[in-house]
Amino acid sequence: MTAAPTTAAGPAATPTDSVIDIGPWSPAAFEARLRAVGEERYHDRHPFNLRMHEGTLSQDELRRWIANRFHYQRHIPVKDALITAKFDTPALRRMWLRRIQDHDGARDGEGGIERWLRLGEAAGLDREELLSGAIVLPGVRLAVDGYVNFCRLRPALEAVAASLTELSAPDLMRTRIDAFERHYRWIEPDGLHYFRTRVTQGRRDSGEALDLVLRWARTREDQERAVAALGFKCDVLWALLDAVDHA
Amino acid sequence: MTAAPTTAAGPAATPTDSVIDIGPWSPAAFEARLRAVGEERYHDRHPFNLRMHEGTLSQDELRRWIANRFHYQRHIPVKDALITAKFDTPALRRMWLRRIQDHDGARDGEGGIERWLRLGEAAGLDREELLSGAIVLPGVRLAVDGYVNFCRLRPALEAVAASLTELSAPDLMRTRIDAFERHYRWIEPDGLHYFRTRVTQGRRDSGEALDLVLRWARTREDQERAVAALGFKCDVLWALLDAVDHA
Repeated sequence: MTAAPTTAAGPAATPTDSVIDIGPWSPAAFEARLRAVGEERYHDRHPFNLRMHEGTLSQDELRRWIANRFHYQRHIPVKDALITAKFDTPALRRMWLRRIQDHDGARDGEGGIERWLRLGEAAGLDREELLSGAIVLPGVRLAVDGYVNFCRLRPALEAVAASLTELSAPDLMRTRIDAFERHYRWIEPDGLHYFRTRVTQGRRDSGEALDLVLRWARTREDQERAVAALGFKCDVLWALLDAVDHA
Repeated sequence: MTAAPTTAAGPAATPTDSVIDIGPWSPAAFEARLRAVGEERYHDRHPFNLRMHEGTLSQDELRRWIANRFHYQRHIPVKDALITAKFDTPALRRMWLRRIQDHDGARDGEGGIERWLRLGEAAGLDREELLSGAIVLPGVRLAVDGYVNFCRLRPALEAVAASLTELSAPDLMRTRIDAFERHYRWIEPDGLHYFRTRVTQGRRDSGEALDLVLRWARTREDQERAVAALGFKCDVLWALLDAVDHA
């Protein structure tokens, strides 16, 4: 048996091939493609992340990462508000609003952004300096702007699909907690609370988002756009680490 | 005494006049200008609203208004999510998120959008027809799109200033409840719960928004842009009633 041509326009194409080529993937096949993007392109494989988890980052390098990643963290509620604005039912908006609340907290001193600030303080960074954004690298600004604008400008399906890096995040968080506890004991353990919280939140968020993407993407074209959106998001996270690594 | 020239470029202009002309209004004068916009241009003065409150609308006219105004109501959380996305602190986003929650509710069957649907049902309209949007007039769609896009595209100051029609809303709500109870007894009283809720919510919302606008508008140009934004919002509400009136 020889492989089927990959495009319907190929010389061996038949009407049957054509239908197969443009029909939607099954939900299981579509989900497998989405998960494959994370396995191949998620930033857990980035050299800087590998060094972080091996324990070979210097204190300066780790602080640089924490300060620059904070620029990403503080924009999560912004992109989630932009996604919320794309939804046309109270039920969907309510689901997504909880993400904003997770990061902003119910009151001052709570929430994911506050927890990240405490991670910074536990690593010896100054809260005011973190909030000023003065040490954020241009490449990090561009990566974050790119992601926020993607969520601003693209349809709901793609903006939600881009959030599916959360499928890979909980495992990364657990590895990271282990690595920090083993290799970076100069960071106070209380500072790791952000990572702990995200294990549970990430599972819930990615489960909800995956349900929406599987439900909304009814054509092959939709499915491919969703896969591309997730790939784009992996590029954003990768570019952020590139900028931190090359600084 | 003659009146001072209104532009610094006028023949009688002096350096002192020029400074007076371009300096910011005092907070009290600025607030008075904002309130004057509401007094002059809020849709409580629209002929259709006057007829509504006099009790001379037919059942068909009142149903047409309820169905078309629903198109506006269901977009309130969308414009509020777009405004939330403009804020750069958890505290501001938290404040504005509550508006979304007021309209979407904490769970199915709650919130302002649900209450408006019940107003429609109390007036004999079908919930599914309301949700379908089939009876929404083109002029109403354009007015609502215009407002949502204003909140999408304009700076936070102007988007928040546009919300200051809420300064005039609580009084309108109380007049409306009286009018409905007196003139439109064919509407079940439970249907008026939306209006009752908005008296309190409107006062709180407009107070918060006014504080922000007074704080943020530091130059005369900012202040004038805020006044213009509120004028624009009055135009949106007026155009909505024009479309309903002329249908």
